[in-house]
Amino acid sequence: METPGCPLCEGPGGTVIFPGARFRVIRAAEAGFPAFYRLVWGAHVREFSDLEPQERHRCIDAVACIEEALRRHLAPVKVNLATLGNAVPHLHWHIVARFEWDSHFPGAPWATAQRQVAPEAQARVEALLPALEADIAARLAALP
Amino acid sequence: METPGCPLCEGPGGTVIFPGARFRVIRAAEAGFPAFYRLVWGAHVREFSDLEPQERHRCIDAVACIEEALRRHLAPVKVNLATLGNAVPHLHWHIVARFEWDSHFPGAPWATAQRQVAPEAQARVEALLPALEADIAARLAALP
Repeated sequence: METPGCPLCEGPGGTVIFPGARFRVIRAAEAGFPAFYRLVWGAHVREFSDLEPQERHRCIDAVACIEEALRRHLAPVKVNLATLGNAVPHLHWHIVARFEWDSHFPGAPWATAQRQVAPEAQARVEALLPALEADIAARLAALP
Repeated sequence: METPGCPLCEGPGGTVIFPGARFRVIRAAEAGFPAFYRLVWGAHVREFSDLEPQERHRCIDAVACIEEALRRHLAPVKVNLATLGNAVPHLHWHIVARFEWDSHFPGAPWATAQRQVAPEAQARVEALLPALEADIAARLAALP
């Protein structure tokens, strides 16, 4: 079911923290955002509404599970969720923990950067990622 | 359950095309995007994962219903979905029909504009909005 030329069919798209048959979760390396994850649907599906209702619920339950883990481990000021896919039309959800000190806050992750991130703030969050990611993987594995 | 100072508690936030008890849908007036809608949750809830699972499904089913209507009526090249709320932390979903000629494509709606929209392209989509919005309202009213 691979679509030639699709980077999310041909490669993982980031550091895989949950490899699943239905979907995988990757840590994205987006400068300025210490906790930026993507849920990438396994099959090459263009739009969220291309999924059958039951699969949609599974997808959004996984997104919400990741959001909950971000909140629990990192206490971000806000979580941002988005599925855009204008450049890569293979269903994927961006799940981003936001902090008042991150590069773009309160702007969207796709807006113009407003500041450089202090390395110690970034490092403080990064130190929490191993436990966060282990928790995400365990909870996603336990979803129906 | 109004939260003082919250613009989405104190006003509709746009032109209401579906007034509901659980949520409303508004047409946003965002320059460059002829079909930009928002689903605004009725209660002042901060994060998507603050909703109980059943309410989350109702919320996302409504978002998907609007996406399907956009696809059916407007045949956009892509639909963008997002819940950010960094500036207004009252749960709302952005549901945006994207066209290759819109002001930001293929960038996110929150990225830097890339072009001015041709008035005739904008007008062509705007002519389809009354039927689209009637359809959205009818289908949302029929959801469980």
